[in-house]
Amino acid sequence: MAEANINDNEVDIVIAAFHSDLTAFLNEWKPIFSRFHLIIIKDPDLKEELRIPEGFNFHAYTKSDIDKAVGSSNSHLFSGYSSRYFGYLISRKKYIVSVDDDCLPAKDNMGCLVDVVSQHIANLKTPATPFFFNTLYDPYRKGADFVRGYPFSLRSGVSCALSCGLWLNVADWDAPTQALKPGQRNSRYVDAVLTVPAKAMMPVSGINIAFDRELLGPALVPALRLGGEGKFRWETVEDIWCGMCAKVICDHLGLGVKSGLPYVWRSERGNAIQSLKKEGEGMKLMEKVVPFFQSVRLPQSAATVEDCVVEMANIVKEQLGQVEPMYGRAADAMMAWVKLWKSVGSG
Amino acid sequence: MAEANINDNEVDIVIAAFHSDLTAFLNEWKPIFSRFHLIIIKDPDLKEELRIPEGFNFHAYTKSDIDKAVGSSNSHLFSGYSSRYFGYLISRKKYIVSVDDDCLPAKDNMGCLVDVVSQHIANLKTPATPFFFNTLYDPYRKGADFVRGYPFSLRSGVSCALSCGLWLNVADWDAPTQALKPGQRNSRYVDAVLTVPAKAMMPVSGINIAFDRELLGPALVPALRLGGEGKFRWETVEDIWCGMCAKVICDHLGLGVKSGLPYVWRSERGNAIQSLKKEGEGMKLMEKVVPFFQSVRLPQSAATVEDCVVEMANIVKEQLGQVEPMYGRAADAMMAWVKLWKSVGSG
Repeated sequence: MAEANINDNEVDIVIAAFHSDLTAFLNEWKPIFSRFHLIIIKDPDLKEELRIPEGFNFHAYTKSDIDKAVGSSNSHLFSGYSSRYFGYLISRKKYIVSVDDDCLPAKDNMGCLVDVVSQHIANLKTPATPFFFNTLYDPYRKGADFVRGYPFSLRSGVSCALSCGLWLNVADWDAPTQALKPGQRNSRYVDAVLTVPAKAMMPVSGINIAFDRELLGPALVPALRLGGEGKFRWETVEDIWCGMCAKVICDHLGLGVKSGLPYVWRSERGNAIQSLKKEGEGMKLMEKVVPFFQSVRLPQSAATVEDCVVEMANIVKEQLGQVEPMYGRAADAMMAWVKLWKSVGSG
Repeated sequence: MAEANINDNEVDIVIAAFHSDLTAFLNEWKPIFSRFHLIIIKDPDLKEELRIPEGFNFHAYTKSDIDKAVGSSNSHLFSGYSSRYFGYLISRKKYIVSVDDDCLPAKDNMGCLVDVVSQHIANLKTPATPFFFNTLYDPYRKGADFVRGYPFSLRSGVSCALSCGLWLNVADWDAPTQALKPGQRNSRYVDAVLTVPAKAMMPVSGINIAFDRELLGPALVPALRLGGEGKFRWETVEDIWCGMCAKVICDHLGLGVKSGLPYVWRSERGNAIQSLKKEGEGMKLMEKVVPFFQSVRLPQSAATVEDCVVEMANIVKEQLGQVEPMYGRAADAMMAWVKLWKSVGSG
């Protein structure tokens, strides 16, 4: 487990609440979360009052808080799984750690509790190496280094802006995979963090991520929403779209993205077979979306993250908007988000 | 540990012998190697007779065998660490597994002996996924799969041509790193195999590799030789150059390269501080070589591996040959190698 020297005031933990009773969830996380400030966003569709146990420093936001802050014309951006993006918007901290409310702390191969915050912040505070792949994984980790042949001029690395954690037990398969292999669980704890190379695209999952909000904040954008987006991860692709935007922007600006540790333990939720129809829509979209993000190039003039999101929105509108109106709406959402970041956020 | 269904006749194990007495080395490997044919190449500088224990099906080649097969004008290609390439050349098997003679079998996290052949062949027999990164590593491994958002059209993958294994104990640091951190050992067994994404370059180490000779053979080329190349890995860069050639060719032809399992256990050998001067030369070269391989693009007309090596040699000669004569000699070696592959090899 990496040990990062963390200032409590540098971190906001953002939780989107799909269940009103967060008692069991938060009590499990208490050893890890209690020293940090929590931003809890209540799913706008959730009727009951939130139940939050004692011992946490938190601020909870409801639909009316969202409406008040962003205006009712923008509040649709923050429904369902995208409600957490409201937390990203209002945070003023350097780092955001965000974990789904169906996840609990995992244990490593030695049986020790994984400190998800410490590992994410260590990933973000140490450099990333997107321009040459280190075969022994993260060279900045204790006991690791650059392997023979790694150019010295690339060994100082670049700033890491996004850290993508993984999942034990219920892995982030899509609904068809989970439906075909209902008993399949991920039990392999891979003790590694790696920088995803520049120009390589990946499916970023929003289940367990952290980012440097000051470096990359506006790129974590709520944009692509499926018509039938539901309350299970496999019914959504908002995080996949957002992750590819963020990766393209990191590549363009010379920032790094890491993947691997820390793990969380994901619990059972939902029925994959019932979700098949909804997910099918998202799966089909990926066939167009992935080649698009693999080939899109931002103009040199885009020098800030906000610039990059605006440019990306323009290109999405132009190249994908005509294919399918959903992409056009994603582009509109990206434009609206950048405006909000500048007015409501810290942009 | 992956279980590959291996036909003994598909595999040649190639060993370059820098020590005359291979008894201890081969006896340790007996449980894994004894069912396969071994090609043993005696380092041309080694004077004593090879000592090979009973129980192995092998063919040993000496300097005079090399001279006879390739002609004395070409035999300089196969000196020192490059002697193993003679084994690649004369093999007629589909798969080559090559392990340095200072390596012994490793144990995994459960204390089980790692079957290096089985894991390499499993890596080569299952598809690679260079065009989109799977965050849960090799999706074809037992218990693994593609994560949500992975396009279905990319899930059949491409053929894997090169499998790069790793090292426990003495890792493949360069001489300066080892000299600075003399006590540093790699003790982290990372239980993962991943496809190195297309266009990402990496330092391929020749210590523990396997490849599909029918798919990629001529790309494993002995080319860049340091003036002071010695008998320790950290005094060489031939494998780093060869690996970048192979990676560029795989990217061009749509083949995959995997990295990770299997591990071997590397023993102590050499004095890093004494090697610093020799290695310094190789390290300096990497600063030019890496950007070159990152940007080189082969013409569409290069449709076979042989074509690709010839094209690459031409580009090396043109773009790097004027900078430093060593690169020009590397280009000449690549041309000579392709000719040999066609005449002596199975090309």
